[in-house]
Amino acid sequence: RPADVGEEVTLCGWVQYLRQDLFVIMRDFSGLAQILIPQDEVRLFNTLCDLPPESVIRVKGTVRLRPDGQENKMPTGEIEVLAESVEILNVCRKLPFEIKDFVKKSESLRMQYRYLDLRSSQMQYNLRLRSQLVMKMREYLCNVHGFVDVETPTLFKRTPGGAKEFVVPSREPGRFYSLPQSPQQFKQLLMVAGIDRYFQLARCYRDEGSKPDRQPEFTQVDIEMSFVDQAGIRGLIEGLVQYSWPVEKDPVSTPFPCITYEKAMKDYGVDKPDTRFAMKLMDISKTFHNTEIEFLKDALNQPGGCIQAICIPDGAVSTEVSVVLVKADGALKSPLNRLMPASAKQQLLQMAQARPGDLLLISAGTQECRPLLGKLRLQCAELLEGSGVAVRDPSAFHFLWVVDFPLFLPKEEDPDQLESAHHPFTAPLPEDAHLLYSLPHKVRGQHYDLVLNGCEIGGGSIRIHKASDQQHVLETILKEDPSLLSHLLEALDSGAPPHGGIALGLDRFLSIIVGAPSIRDVIAFPKSFRGHDLMSRAPDFVSEDELKSYHIAVNWPAGDEGNQEK
Amino acid sequence: RPADVGEEVTLCGWVQYLRQDLFVIMRDFSGLAQILIPQDEVRLFNTLCDLPPESVIRVKGTVRLRPDGQENKMPTGEIEVLAESVEILNVCRKLPFEIKDFVKKSESLRMQYRYLDLRSSQMQYNLRLRSQLVMKMREYLCNVHGFVDVETPTLFKRTPGGAKEFVVPSREPGRFYSLPQSPQQFKQLLMVAGIDRYFQLARCYRDEGSKPDRQPEFTQVDIEMSFVDQAGIRGLIEGLVQYSWPVEKDPVSTPFPCITYEKAMKDYGVDKPDTRFAMKLMDISKTFHNTEIEFLKDALNQPGGCIQAICIPDGAVSTEVSVVLVKADGALKSPLNRLMPASAKQQLLQMAQARPGDLLLISAGTQECRPLLGKLRLQCAELLEGSGVAVRDPSAFHFLWVVDFPLFLPKEEDPDQLESAHHPFTAPLPEDAHLLYSLPHKVRGQHYDLVLNGCEIGGGSIRIHKASDQQHVLETILKEDPSLLSHLLEALDSGAPPHGGIALGLDRFLSIIVGAPSIRDVIAFPKSFRGHDLMSRAPDFVSEDELKSYHIAVNWPAGDEGNQEK
Repeated sequence: RPADVGEEVTLCGWVQYLRQDLFVIMRDFSGLAQILIPQDEVRLFNTLCDLPPESVIRVKGTVRLRPDGQENKMPTGEIEVLAESVEILNVCRKLPFEIKDFVKKSESLRMQYRYLDLRSSQMQYNLRLRSQLVMKMREYLCNVHGFVDVETPTLFKRTPGGAKEFVVPSREPGRFYSLPQSPQQFKQLLMVAGIDRYFQLARCYRDEGSKPDRQPEFTQVDIEMSFVDQAGIRGLIEGLVQYSWPVEKDPVSTPFPCITYEKAMKDYGVDKPDTRFAMKLMDISKTFHNTEIEFLKDALNQPGGCIQAICIPDGAVSTEVSVVLVKADGALKSPLNRLMPASAKQQLLQMAQARPGDLLLISAGTQECRPLLGKLRLQCAELLEGSGVAVRDPSAFHFLWVVDFPLFLPKEEDPDQLESAHHPFTAPLPEDAHLLYSLPHKVRGQHYDLVLNGCEIGGGSIRIHKASDQQHVLETILKEDPSLLSHLLEALDSGAPPHGGIALGLDRFLSIIVGAPSIRDVIAFPKSFRGHDLMSRAPDFVSEDELKSYHIAVNWPAGDEGNQEK
Repeated sequence: RPADVGEEVTLCGWVQYLRQDLFVIMRDFSGLAQILIPQDEVRLFNTLCDLPPESVIRVKGTVRLRPDGQENKMPTGEIEVLAESVEILNVCRKLPFEIKDFVKKSESLRMQYRYLDLRSSQMQYNLRLRSQLVMKMREYLCNVHGFVDVETPTLFKRTPGGAKEFVVPSREPGRFYSLPQSPQQFKQLLMVAGIDRYFQLARCYRDEGSKPDRQPEFTQVDIEMSFVDQAGIRGLIEGLVQYSWPVEKDPVSTPFPCITYEKAMKDYGVDKPDTRFAMKLMDISKTFHNTEIEFLKDALNQPGGCIQAICIPDGAVSTEVSVVLVKADGALKSPLNRLMPASAKQQLLQMAQARPGDLLLISAGTQECRPLLGKLRLQCAELLEGSGVAVRDPSAFHFLWVVDFPLFLPKEEDPDQLESAHHPFTAPLPEDAHLLYSLPHKVRGQHYDLVLNGCEIGGGSIRIHKASDQQHVLETILKEDPSLLSHLLEALDSGAPPHGGIALGLDRFLSIIVGAPSIRDVIAFPKSFRGHDLMSRAPDFVSEDELKSYHIAVNWPAGDEGNQEK
């Protein structure tokens, strides 16, 4: 900077490029600097003139102002370093792509040469921001609120039915560890152990094959507290987000809005609404109260039947998907137009608050249409944005709590059976607790999700802390074998305090903050869609001999035997 | 505290015990408090009188001074809480042992009921200190020195010859991930990636079967820097230890002493000397220069032959293991006594600085006796301490750097072959670099170990940053297949900066600080000697069906087939 003019400096970094045989442009994580090679320094010049970009050098020299007219707007644009010596620390020989932000690279090339990809200013920003944000979170939890950072094991016992858990063979025949999906059991055991405020940046594992934008290992901010209620956890997390929020972004205001699951489904057709834009679902059944239109009448006569609508502001302009198009003169363009009396049309427009140029999407059916309308709402927003209409402010961050979820849901494959909506350790709402023993399907749970811009970034609950209740849920309601969790049930019977917690998905949270299209952009060395490390080629074949000490053998699929060398 | 007298308070915690049907002694992590139940509160009294210890209660009441003569010396010993209401939050039904510090429990019982064991004041202290120390380390690295906390993958590719790496089967037949022993490759790749200061509290995995006091998963403070030398790393770590050192301990002074590997072997017979006590190895060959004693003469005539001694102060008092015992009158009691002329005896006592009551242990052989004498030195210290002689100050912490290790050692099974003394990425000392291509067995490496009270708590090195040198080490010296590390070699050729780092073993470091006999005492949920989790019974059997998706089957040892149900 100009304030450093006259200073003797030593700079270490990468050669970005050479210019006019006179200048070396050097780069490190903090930016670029221009080095001037004195014209009479023939030796220095000769050293550098053939140096490939991305070679590593150490420069000693003096900071001086650039001559008039040679300044530019870079942070170091007013100064340059007059070199006294330049040492070549390493010569760069191979470059599959240039380290320039505007050079487009394929995803697989980026992954194969991740150590080069990470030199880009965007990836440097993402990783350094991640480190800073995590550090602030730790300060808030540990220093401000007295939480204890406890590491829990990742070599653990397989959870009953844990189909998504990686197994790790041990040296005892037939015995396997399992890589847990979360430290759920350990965090609850720590509460029983009297560590009243626990947190951990926990590595978690989930073997999901190739779901888009998932990673086989990921990180969650894992929190648990004793003697706390829902409001206590929510307030803690609001403070945590506010405290750790990047200073360069607009500050986050708290408390976050909070809506019930029921209201989220009704207004947005989804339990993780994107509240950066309206376009809510509306029940317009009343408009068609006396309708003669046959299919609408049929819909309304069903149990739970209703007519719902979404009004897409300016939707008529930007899309051809039209159901009821409100023309510029206020007339409707719709297959329904002919069939509706003028008064009904008027009422429809009023109820939907539709203005000229808007598009109305109408569905007739039961409340089960809500998720479909919810998806349509998001697709309309994308369509509009694709046509250049501003729907969501890209710099806006809308946090939202969703609460009062059902505790149990009917199993898809057997709707007479119940399964946990989240996990079997969630406590019922106090006012619904008595229903646990009579009408479990009506019980709402003390579960809360944290939603940011339509993505679920966290979830947690107040837990069941009485062994008898936990046993009832496992055995009577869920029909699971409680002996598999006997250590947890015993722990609850050994003086377990009331407790609750939450887990935030750190990778997802960060990717939203930096506006990255994928969580891979906030992870230093992510795996590909198929779970491969393209740099080292993992997973890889292991010799039969090496597997022997684990007492396992590979079952090669038919026709694939001895294919280890491929 | 007395300052709180008159305050309305709410206390949550565990019932330690009931006293005189009047008092409840409550416990939380911060200590004990005495609750007084008003004598006229029959209902309150009835609620509590049958409450088992370790039940969980919430008390509302008022702080008041204890009546004269009822105070004690506990931190809360001057006050008590006069209860207005007591709520029973959970009743404790089962207790395999009492939660009292003086109750001795077997290790396996502690592990099986770890959630109760962790309620002890010592384990609460250990886990809370661990959290605080780690937090201070992060502040020092991240906030004071601009390090970037980067998480690296734990599902990685198997290292060639990585016999101690757990394997993790993937859903692709025959392909396995591996749980790495350290993030070594990733930390070096991050330097190539321009993350010039990296750190991570890294979970590492090592499958060593049942070595004493090892854990299959452990944590290291993992650090790497670009453009740094040995002194830079050592200074950083000294600052880190000083900054994070528990405030309740005597402060640590820096810089730490530093000795060469050669000197450590010479003086202590080990590369991780316990410098809390002297009893150094001494070369007393000179004394026996003209000896007539046959076996000593033979020893001295060998190549590298020498006579070495350890003088055990007061050793004559406390042990019967006697070789040369210096009697109270200064005479020697030894099989050598008869054979040595008076002048030689005198010289021996002088050289060894032996005083009456001391014990001299003498070995004749080559320098290869040093490790044996090193072990003897430690055993003598233990023997003396067992007899009540103060040898090592239990409150002393002696840090020591050991440097200038040989870069390669002859392989045990084939001494003509060399193997890396630490790992193949360590750079040679600059003054030995030219020997890499001529006399590799003479090369000293830029490796440094950090030793505390005779335990290695950390190690690191300046790395090779030129691909050609790395390839020479791997291919020509170590005879390894360099293609297995092709991604690292390519990275070094893509503009790798000079770099180096270190890893500290957090579990070991903490166990020394808190004076714990085992690292299990500073880990929340450790595994047993045999790698078992005694609480959840991991590792456990997994059904054949569940293994199918990983294309593996168990090879049951003969006679053990179908033994899955045992």
